[in-house]
Amino acid sequence: MYPGFDGPAPDPKTVRELRLEIEEFHSAYCWTLDRGALEEWPEYFTDDAVYRITARENADEGLPVGLVYADSKAMIRDRAFAVKHTQMYAPRYMQHFVTNLRIIEAGVRIKAQANYLLLQTLVDGPSTIHQAGRYYDTFVRLNGKLLLKERQCVYDTVLIANDLVLPV
Amino acid sequence: MYPGFDGPAPDPKTVRELRLEIEEFHSAYCWTLDRGALEEWPEYFTDDAVYRITARENADEGLPVGLVYADSKAMIRDRAFAVKHTQMYAPRYMQHFVTNLRIIEAGVRIKAQANYLLLQTLVDGPSTIHQAGRYYDTFVRLNGKLLLKERQCVYDTVLIANDLVLPV
Amino acid sequence: MYPGFDGPAPDPKTVRELRLEIEEFHSAYCWTLDRGALEEWPEYFTDDAVYRITARENADEGLPVGLVYADSKAMIRDRAFAVKHTQMYAPRYMQHFVTNLRIIEAGVRIKAQANYLLLQTLVDGPSTIHQAGRYYDTFVRLNGKLLLKERQCVYDTVLIANDLVLPV
Repeated sequence: MYPGFDGPAPDPKTVRELRLEIEEFHSAYCWTLDRGALEEWPEYFTDDAVYRITARENADEGLPVGLVYADSKAMIRDRAFAVKHTQMYAPRYMQHFVTNLRIIEAGVRIKAQANYLLLQTLVDGPSTIHQAGRYYDTFVRLNGKLLLKERQCVYDTVLIANDLVLPV
Repeated sequence: MYPGFDGPAPDPKTVRELRLEIEEFHSAYCWTLDRGALEEWPEYFTDDAVYRITARENADEGLPVGLVYADSKAMIRDRAFAVKHTQMYAPRYMQHFVTNLRIIEAGVRIKAQANYLLLQTLVDGPSTIHQAGRYYDTFVRLNGKLLLKERQCVYDTVLIANDLVLPV
Repeated sequence: MYPGFDGPAPDPKTVRELRLEIEEFHSAYCWTLDRGALEEWPEYFTDDAVYRITARENADEGLPVGLVYADSKAMIRDRAFAVKHTQMYAPRYMQHFVTNLRIIEAGVRIKAQANYLLLQTLVDGPSTIHQAGRYYDTFVRLNGKLLLKERQCVYDTVLIANDLVLPV
């Protein structure tokens, strides 16, 4: 279904150290988005990074299309700028919950997946499920620091508000 | 309330190594269910494993009944087969979020609990909370690998769709 | 926005060991609340602890007010007693999901944040999102054990049932 995401697991000890490091990465990444610091968001990616948000049915069929697609840090930066400065939308709070981390490959290239639940709270409204899905990530290490070389955000949620596509 | 689940905590260092190992177990287990690989699900259990899904009010009163009950890997395999091949139901995506791991016993027998949130997405619908509850697990180690000797899934959610009981 | 919560990260190795310890703390704390053992809840705090539940818009503006405020363990104990013994409310189950732990300071004083999702299940009802927010915590270590010197629970959810304010 997702090539490279069902192979044999790597060495347990390496994985466990890496596990904590990736959890820290997710927490930092999500906090950047949740406090609205979109200008910092591109810094989690490599220069040649691929970022995509797409529906599970598209991903299952191997379709390259998606709700959002960027294939460089420059495009990710453009996206952040567009969301922050040019789109009109009602004020809202977003909150990411990331769980169920799985490490699939722990070599020079690190492949991992995780579940995300994205809650949205509009002014005067309750907190609701905005999008639920999975991250399929490829990390590389640059100057000792993990960076995303690829992040595919594949959502189960079919009915999402397409008019405003915030980063996930 | 749940005998054996409120005793003194075991040695901190052992628990912390085990913690990461159990988190990996949960992530793998849930991903097996969420991608619909039900034929692999029984492989997470010992031959004599007990598996039960039951309401919190039943569990609180010590009632043995439940929505689903199996007391061997063979019964769990039958259950997986029934869900996969004989039940009729609308296509849907399921997603498990597991958090709040607690380790209660870390000897030859390992006892742990965790919270699960199970989301469901029907075609053309939003993602909704299908079931929320707690795992009460007993693990044993076989050939270096953790296996469930007992998993009690105790759900808070009273109104769950009883017509289709998917594994949790 | 939240002073002291955006500084440089401390030494990675220390943080990772601490990470597991804080996760254990959250799991134990939430389980105490979720099983209704309110009389044990104050034991997670220091004698001079500050505990507050407040809306994100209040926190963003630096307002000291909140839904719940206590500035000592004695006040926290009073609060627990009031909820347990004097308030009238319909029976319900609560379940906390804590994710996205971030450690900001890892010295004598430990500062961390985490996301919480609090689900509520009323008798004969579905499980719904009661409150979603973030913990902003300051821990200290007493006799080797982590205790909360400050816990600010800042919720995104605007529409919460103010008539019954359970601890978070």
